[in-house]
Amino acid sequence: MADRVGMWKSLGMDVKAHDALCSMLPTAFGDVFLSQRNRPESMAFWDMVAADIHGMRPAELIEAQANGQKVFGAFCVYVPDEVILACDGIVTGLCGGSQFWVPAGEQMLPADVCPLIKASVGARISRTCPFFRIADLFVGETTCDGKKKAYEILAKDAPLYVMDTPQMKRQKDIDKWADEIRDFADEVQRVTGNQLTSENLAKAIKVTNDRRRALARVFEARKSRVAPISGADALLMMQISFFDDPVRCAEMCNRLADELERRIEQGVSAVPAGSKRILITGTPMAIPNWKLHHIVETCGAVVACEEMCTGTRSFENLVDETQTTLEGQFQALSQRYMKNNCACFTPNGGRIDDVIRLARTYQVDGVINANLTFCTTYKLEAPALERAVEEAGFPVLSIETGYSDGDSEQLRTRIGAFVEMLG
Amino acid sequence: MADRVGMWKSLGMDVKAHDALCSMLPTAFGDVFLSQRNRPESMAFWDMVAADIHGMRPAELIEAQANGQKVFGAFCVYVPDEVILACDGIVTGLCGGSQFWVPAGEQMLPADVCPLIKASVGARISRTCPFFRIADLFVGETTCDGKKKAYEILAKDAPLYVMDTPQMKRQKDIDKWADEIRDFADEVQRVTGNQLTSENLAKAIKVTNDRRRALARVFEARKSRVAPISGADALLMMQISFFDDPVRCAEMCNRLADELERRIEQGVSAVPAGSKRILITGTPMAIPNWKLHHIVETCGAVVACEEMCTGTRSFENLVDETQTTLEGQFQALSQRYMKNNCACFTPNGGRIDDVIRLARTYQVDGVINANLTFCTTYKLEAPALERAVEEAGFPVLSIETGYSDGDSEQLRTRIGAFVEMLG
Ligand code: SF4
Ligand code: SF4
Ligand code: SF4
Ligand code: SF4
Repeated sequence: MADRVGMWKSLGMDVKAHDALCSMLPTAFGDVFLSQRNRPESMAFWDMVAADIHGMRPAELIEAQANGQKVFGAFCVYVPDEVILACDGIVTGLCGGSQFWVPAGEQMLPADVCPLIKASVGARISRTCPFFRIADLFVGETTCDGKKKAYEILAKDAPLYVMDTPQMKRQKDIDKWADEIRDFADEVQRVTGNQLTSENLAKAIKVTNDRRRALARVFEARKSRVAPISGADALLMMQISFFDDPVRCAEMCNRLADELERRIEQGVSAVPAGSKRILITGTPMAIPNWKLHHIVETCGAVVACEEMCTGTRSFENLVDETQTTLEGQFQALSQRYMKNNCACFTPNGGRIDDVIRLARTYQVDGVINANLTFCTTYKLEAPALERAVEEAGFPVLSIETGYSDGDSEQLRTRIGAFVEMLG
Repeated sequence: MADRVGMWKSLGMDVKAHDALCSMLPTAFGDVFLSQRNRPESMAFWDMVAADIHGMRPAELIEAQANGQKVFGAFCVYVPDEVILACDGIVTGLCGGSQFWVPAGEQMLPADVCPLIKASVGARISRTCPFFRIADLFVGETTCDGKKKAYEILAKDAPLYVMDTPQMKRQKDIDKWADEIRDFADEVQRVTGNQLTSENLAKAIKVTNDRRRALARVFEARKSRVAPISGADALLMMQISFFDDPVRCAEMCNRLADELERRIEQGVSAVPAGSKRILITGTPMAIPNWKLHHIVETCGAVVACEEMCTGTRSFENLVDETQTTLEGQFQALSQRYMKNNCACFTPNGGRIDDVIRLARTYQVDGVINANLTFCTTYKLEAPALERAVEEAGFPVLSIETGYSDGDSEQLRTRIGAFVEMLG
């Protein structure tokens, strides 16, 4: 293996603090992933990426930077990767998913902010995540109060550009988002030094759609009652898709989908027969947040689908590939992104429809609505969502949890009872 | 006195629960206001309004409705009164300022939402506030996550229209807000049945500016070291300005300003000599939230200014009165409203400038940054604000508090020590 420590040092990382993180992750990964039986063989790729998460991909990014490419870090699936890719930029996710970063985040933020935000700020200021060191530009958005204001704090320490996401979903909001994408394109051109053209944007739209199609194939296989892959493995694949090169990501996902389709034909399951099928809806699960999937899948159930940004929302709805002008493409991008039903929008009835539709097509036995602590937007729409999903005939368990393992046993009891109760 | 109970019943209020509120308020009012010495005589008007807060003005509104006028309830100073007034509509504030309504709000909302939101929802669903019964249309806005999503809950019980406030302050955001005002004007015309014209809008802009000018005169007098009025009295006047008829409000404020100007000439103060002068900045104080002013002003200090929506933000910046077309007027309205530096915007450096400017012109000795519990936007910008204000030479006390009196003694200790410490 290459000189990781040297690389981390050259990124200005706090290598000693980082060692503590590195010593935790393998155990956590082993507990959640390697303990599973009957995994698809194709998961070997993601196991390898995960095992070297702060090494392999960061090294690639640094090499790309040495060749003049720029790296853009994003905190939300609303950021249009296509524009960045078109200008030969690289996109990496920047959401903190580990309790490890929360204390550092709490030095800058009040405790009653969602752990995703605290961990993201903490990952930057503690200098223990290479991706937060590498990114040439952080791209924020005005989705929720916590992020909107945390970017002001991050901006003191990192180069930051904020896109103003609409709060509603009328036609004029779609136009507004198209306009924000146009402005963002100016910034991307400035940072990369490359010109955006309808040709390179068309190519990037195609590449990104291909990734969506590949992810969709993996999820399509999860609809089968055979359950050819565990939810934890599907989640890992999804989490890494935010960090990986999109072409390789699509290739690996297609390879995985091939295997899953074979498994379905042969009736090969990743989980014990009779496992209850669960859809999880809610706030995103940033890597390495595998807490809930691990509990659910060691309680006699399998997670068949995630209605969340680290789930169906990342690949559903393709961007129209037929547009030939930048204006038409910006509008097509906006239309696609604005179909994402995040709780930051009001009203957000589309998410209720999505959850019910997905619960049916993924043939689930029950739904878990899982929100991160202190997430106001998701918490406030939870009662209406849960009522509607129950009325549609799906039992619902409502969970609010953070990153720490302090409530794991309590969650295990509640989830165990819920799974037990399912038809 | 007219038959208030009959009126409340006809509004569908829960009169028994309302009795409990009515029995609390006079004591609270007496403790805070009537115990003060050397009050301006003109405060008699506001004492009278406050003493009959659920009677006099509601009766006027009901009579106006009988004559075909419509009542619009607003939760934010971003809602442009001018458009409503132009169509012969009436505006009333709808922010809950009492702990009394919090438990009812907590039946519909999680506990970790700001008390203003919980009290506002609670005031509606407990049927104990006539204003929440009378309003023909509730006008919400997408300022903070809590309100944005609470409106979805209120909309199930009350007629609700949401204006999409921008989250940033670029020229295109000002254009966007002008466009939202245009759409809102359509709704107001629909609800009132009256047509908006540049003439009636010009008149309404003038009336609203006159109210702003009158409020500004009262505040101008507060700049004097004589301190001709207590902060509590000024706050009461301000709180009631959101409920009162704008012409009467301006008239009464001008009368009060006349008296205050005489007092300054004659050196008549409302507070003991040597009282330290405090500027309070932060989240709004909805009626009857007088908690902090009462504590500060019984600790040897006087509140000289409030940099908040129930303070300078309600009257600073006039709307350009020279526009003669609706389009020009919508733009002028947007420009004025977008000067309000609420923490819901990002970035919000203008608020820091405002606080420092006001601290200087109101000649204060110290600044209290007072935020409601669970208000993420204000909380996250607090450290940067406080640092800058301190660097400008003003000691700062940071306070986070809700509506309950549980922390009053603790606050008294902290505020007492802060005042003691001031030059
Ligand atoms: S949950 Fe909302 S804010 Fe978070 S990544 Fe998804 S779209 Fe963005
Ligand atoms: S989980 Fe909620 S509070 Fe946290 S970043 Fe996402 S939308 Fe914001
Ligand atoms: S603090 Fe912000 S959201 Fe609240 S009333 Fe003022 S402008 Fe509106
Ligand atoms: S005080 Fe804060 S949380 Fe409460 S309504 Fe105002 S902006 Fe929203």
